[in-house]
Amino acid sequence: MKLLTILLACFLISTGIYAENGHNLWLRAKSSVPVEVTCAKKSPTIDIAINELKNGWQGKTGQTIELKVIKDKLLKEDGFRLSKDGIQATTDAGLLYGAYEMLRRQYTGQEIRNELINPDYNLRMLNHWDNLNGSVERGYAGRSIFWHGIDSLQVTSGDLKLWKEYARTNASVGINGTVLNNVNASPSVLTTPVLERAKAVADELRPYGIKTYLAVNFASPEVIGGLETADPLDPEVKAWWNEKVKEIYDLIPDFGGFLVKANSEGQPGPQNFGRTHADGANMMAEALEPYNGIVMWRAFVYDPSDEDRAKQAYNEFMPLDGQFHDNVIIQVKNGPIDFQPREPFSPLFGAMKKTTVMPELQITMEYLGQSVHLVFLGTMWEEFLKSETWQEGAGSTVARCTDGSIFNQKYSAIAGVANIGLDDNWCGHDFAQANWYAFGRQAWDHSISSAQIAEEWIKLTFGPDSFNDKEITPEIEWNLAFVEPVKNMMLESREATVNYMMPLGLHHIFSAHAHYGPGPWWAPPGMRKDWTPPYYHQADSLGIGFDRTAAGSNAISQYHEPLATQLSNVNVCPESLLLWFHHLPWDYQMKNGRSLWDEMCYRYDAGVKQVRNFQQVWDRTERFVDPERFAAVQHKLTEQSMNALEWKDACLLYFQQFSKLPIPYELERPMHTMDELLKRDRQRVRASQ
Amino acid sequence: MKLLTILLACFLISTGIYAENGHNLWLRAKSSVPVEVTCAKKSPTIDIAINELKNGWQGKTGQTIELKVIKDKLLKEDGFRLSKDGIQATTDAGLLYGAYEMLRRQYTGQEIRNELINPDYNLRMLNHWDNLNGSVERGYAGRSIFWHGIDSLQVTSGDLKLWKEYARTNASVGINGTVLNNVNASPSVLTTPVLERAKAVADELRPYGIKTYLAVNFASPEVIGGLETADPLDPEVKAWWNEKVKEIYDLIPDFGGFLVKANSEGQPGPQNFGRTHADGANMMAEALEPYNGIVMWRAFVYDPSDEDRAKQAYNEFMPLDGQFHDNVIIQVKNGPIDFQPREPFSPLFGAMKKTTVMPELQITMEYLGQSVHLVFLGTMWEEFLKSETWQEGAGSTVARCTDGSIFNQKYSAIAGVANIGLDDNWCGHDFAQANWYAFGRQAWDHSISSAQIAEEWIKLTFGPDSFNDKEITPEIEWNLAFVEPVKNMMLESREATVNYMMPLGLHHIFSAHAHYGPGPWWAPPGMRKDWTPPYYHQADSLGIGFDRTAAGSNAISQYHEPLATQLSNVNVCPESLLLWFHHLPWDYQMKNGRSLWDEMCYRYDAGVKQVRNFQQVWDRTERFVDPERFAAVQHKLTEQSMNALEWKDACLLYFQQFSKLPIPYELERPMHTMDELLKRDRQRVRASQ
Repeated sequence: MKLLTILLACFLISTGIYAENGHNLWLRAKSSVPVEVTCAKKSPTIDIAINELKNGWQGKTGQTIELKVIKDKLLKEDGFRLSKDGIQATTDAGLLYGAYEMLRRQYTGQEIRNELINPDYNLRMLNHWDNLNGSVERGYAGRSIFWHGIDSLQVTSGDLKLWKEYARTNASVGINGTVLNNVNASPSVLTTPVLERAKAVADELRPYGIKTYLAVNFASPEVIGGLETADPLDPEVKAWWNEKVKEIYDLIPDFGGFLVKANSEGQPGPQNFGRTHADGANMMAEALEPYNGIVMWRAFVYDPSDEDRAKQAYNEFMPLDGQFHDNVIIQVKNGPIDFQPREPFSPLFGAMKKTTVMPELQITMEYLGQSVHLVFLGTMWEEFLKSETWQEGAGSTVARCTDGSIFNQKYSAIAGVANIGLDDNWCGHDFAQANWYAFGRQAWDHSISSAQIAEEWIKLTFGPDSFNDKEITPEIEWNLAFVEPVKNMMLESREATVNYMMPLGLHHIFSAHAHYGPGPWWAPPGMRKDWTPPYYHQADSLGIGFDRTAAGSNAISQYHEPLATQLSNVNVCPESLLLWFHHLPWDYQMKNGRSLWDEMCYRYDAGVKQVRNFQQVWDRTERFVDPERFAAVQHKLTEQSMNALEWKDACLLYFQQFSKLPIPYELERPMHTMDELLKRDRQRVRASQ
Repeated sequence: MKLLTILLACFLISTGIYAENGHNLWLRAKSSVPVEVTCAKKSPTIDIAINELKNGWQGKTGQTIELKVIKDKLLKEDGFRLSKDGIQATTDAGLLYGAYEMLRRQYTGQEIRNELINPDYNLRMLNHWDNLNGSVERGYAGRSIFWHGIDSLQVTSGDLKLWKEYARTNASVGINGTVLNNVNASPSVLTTPVLERAKAVADELRPYGIKTYLAVNFASPEVIGGLETADPLDPEVKAWWNEKVKEIYDLIPDFGGFLVKANSEGQPGPQNFGRTHADGANMMAEALEPYNGIVMWRAFVYDPSDEDRAKQAYNEFMPLDGQFHDNVIIQVKNGPIDFQPREPFSPLFGAMKKTTVMPELQITMEYLGQSVHLVFLGTMWEEFLKSETWQEGAGSTVARCTDGSIFNQKYSAIAGVANIGLDDNWCGHDFAQANWYAFGRQAWDHSISSAQIAEEWIKLTFGPDSFNDKEITPEIEWNLAFVEPVKNMMLESREATVNYMMPLGLHHIFSAHAHYGPGPWWAPPGMRKDWTPPYYHQADSLGIGFDRTAAGSNAISQYHEPLATQLSNVNVCPESLLLWFHHLPWDYQMKNGRSLWDEMCYRYDAGVKQVRNFQQVWDRTERFVDPERFAAVQHKLTEQSMNALEWKDACLLYFQQFSKLPIPYELERPMHTMDELLKRDRQRVRASQ
């Protein structure tokens, strides 16, 4: 039956009846150019490497490529030496990564020469916020690829096929770990039937060099263990975790470890028992240590106190620096609030000098238009990774503070919250695939430019096979009329979103709950104020912005000098973060001479214009793209365009109530009325409740 | 109680607490400049003239103005001689019109010199489509000012106040007749209690020179008379009408006559009894003749036959030419279909040479954005009135074919379907007042330019008293920064609407029922096809447009030569009416070199841009306008702007399904998706049912 399906699929593909739906992502390498691939060693992973090279080879006809496992102190785990004639690595996985790199260079026109290529982070992880019932928290690409419900744990052939495709895709960009379930973790994840399904996933991922991890609920010993406490210092609790970890490793010998969200947004944690985050993390770390397992402990904590939310994670975790075991990694979101279109980096990076810290990025675009808006996140992550913390002098970028090159640490790691679901194209938006791709590439090489990533992705994902117009001369027109304009659109896309959503350092002014549309006004009576936009924008008749200087919340003091002084000085603080750190009058004069109010208007307007330009860019590519993906992206850009306009109109009309100033007359006027926007928002809030 | 209200109102006005709501229309003349006004004759009408001059005088201080009723064969009824020192007329009403003219010139800066001023039409009529239950068919400005229900016929002081204001407003622009009720007439209008209320209206209108008319139901003798037939040749039916007319004239001695919609859209008529329109109209004309009453008989007839709807009125009425009594006037809508944003003139104008024909214009904007869109109709009516019919050689414009200057006729008349309701500002949209004003001015003087009308209306309706910014130097800035840009906006507004709704001669592609939003796709199974847009646009894979040449419906043959030949020739036919008369291929080359498809795209796009420009124009006027009217117009322009975009997107995305051509890439792309537009349309259709 399975064979029949595959045969049928092959038939459909070869006859062109099988419509393009984006399912093949950037893995379209196929070739009939003969190549000889040899390797003295045999393993499932090496077999994959050999097959990938044979099936995709675009180099010299009849060339021989030698794969070789060697000893080499210059090679880190997963690293490899590339040459025209072969790949050398200290591990089987290294050979596989080398094979993918070789093919990528062939397909994107990059040179293959003698080169030593090491990954910057040891652990390059996806976090899936997938619930056991099959839903995905902040998932915009369909239901979970791992879970279909606690009553549907049986593994099907469809599951296995998908998990293998998933593993291959990750391996192709160097991702080597994945957390299978939501950080808001069900205790049931540690029950035996669920663990057995996790084992099945792990078995599919293993040949591709990917380790499996689980997010666990701190109260598990109580909820599923029947204990009366989950106190991390309680011997019975420790014993329970030791036993549970042993059970897991019996099933999954290379199990990676736990991800924990504790004492955050209602999740249980050690503080419930008067213990610290360190007590809790270390207890788990001890259980995992004999198996080389790790604990990733999230620093995303804040409570409804009067303290600036942006300061709370730092305040809570800094005193614990030095108290964590060496197999504990503190996982810190890139910014101090929550995955906004633009944030400064979290001040914890580089500040915790005796603790391993890993960045958590969000690939799924909870706050960036979800699966509707075209936003390439490579530029955002590049900006973040290259941010200067000054923690160990000049050059202490976030990347270097976390990759082990500055601080002595057993592990280095980076995580991305996945944007993957059961949608045909995996990610909802065809261009959202580029963010999965970019995360993998940047996790491997944090100094790679987002421009290179975009170009690679475009060339691998589209191409002559997808041309709608078969008369195109690929060599001549492809780069000029497709790759370049589409790349430029991608590179501009995140800044466009910042412009039409929340420019100049504005943040978290979303409509309630869904984090999609604008809701700068949203503040129902009785609501926690740090969950309402007015808390973040602080607009009043005098001005706008969150004062985080010494005169305000003093969150700036959490940054290292000279950065703190720079951010405090309104004349030096980057304008892109101005309202993140300062409350400024409406007539504050920007560097270009405009008033703050006028500049806000210009930025919102620019965002709308940018999206309209993206529509034009995309429409001009019609000849180069298969009809299905062309139409899908066109449709989403249309929605994005209207969304951008709604953002602009909502924010300008709302803030205008405070500024009492006209929108500069040369700009396009609002096309929505405030009444209409408020009505629509109420409908959305109702729908989301 | 009433006095108290007035005193309170005066107090509120003088203290500025009474917000501006537009209720005063263009009648804001007020002054303390002393003037002496004398008249040898006394009458209520002359009293009004004297008071208006005294209250509004802006001429020389202490001047004496003499009003004089004279005999003068050069003066038509209502005409007057104007001079610096006085007004002469053959009737009291003529003096009143002269007084309004004198004040208008003072307030708009036009010279007053010796001049003889006659109206072009004798009968300058409003048609109210007001139902006795108080609703208004195609009314977008609130409920009826005349009727509140068949059980609320008692006249209140509020009614009398409003009717007097209404009468004064009409007199100020020369309107001298009004039909108090809907052409889809309830038989009850001729019952005694209703007639008594009509008498009360007539009594208020009379001093202002305005005659009262009623629309009547042809089946009245059956429905309220208890007869077994309404056959116009039946003696009992004739007797019933004679009796009813006598009853009316006993109540209203200067009653004007009847307006009749017969055998049209389900209304009863003489054809129900095997008689002709002439039989029906003449029977009523005979009853009215002794009192100098008239019958206005509508030519708006069409049935669901295979014949092109545009041809049917002509086909039905031309054979009857010469059969109507001389107090029957055939009332013909300006275009052959139904008040579209642009139509050619109806071929009946000038063709019925032995029958008096009057144009029916629609002031209420059923098909032009109703009370939301800013559309100045003066330009549309100017285009219509100045259309060349060629019926009696060059110069046989529609205006001259209907004003009595070409054909020997007892009456000349023109009607406008009113846009008036109980809304504070009478017309829903502040700028819709300009259309009431324009209709009156053009009914008086069909050669006046719409530019002059717009300028007069602006200067009378806004002005230094309304300035929001009291530091404006009126003389310098007013014209340059307000009057000119607002006038230009008004003059461009109808063409903008044509562009974003249905350019190049497209027509009747509205969403179902409401005639508001776009619905080019709307054609539910079983629906009369001449009520569905595809009947009118005829789009298919080859092209678009209604072929009305000899190869098609041959409607063109109803026009007089050389016009018919010109319209038939696609190279000579005005591009503004191209798709009204021709079905043309998508790649048909326009005069500017663009393809038809590209030109359509450019026109729709231009319409959107024009409205966006109107928003900018209006927003720049903020200093010159009281906050209430400024905000009201701003709000409506915002809605119009989004509506225009919806029109553009809906029509281009729909027609693109046939043309299969890209929207020119340099144009802004659609911001709505087809799915979304269809969904919204379904919701609207449901809501309207």
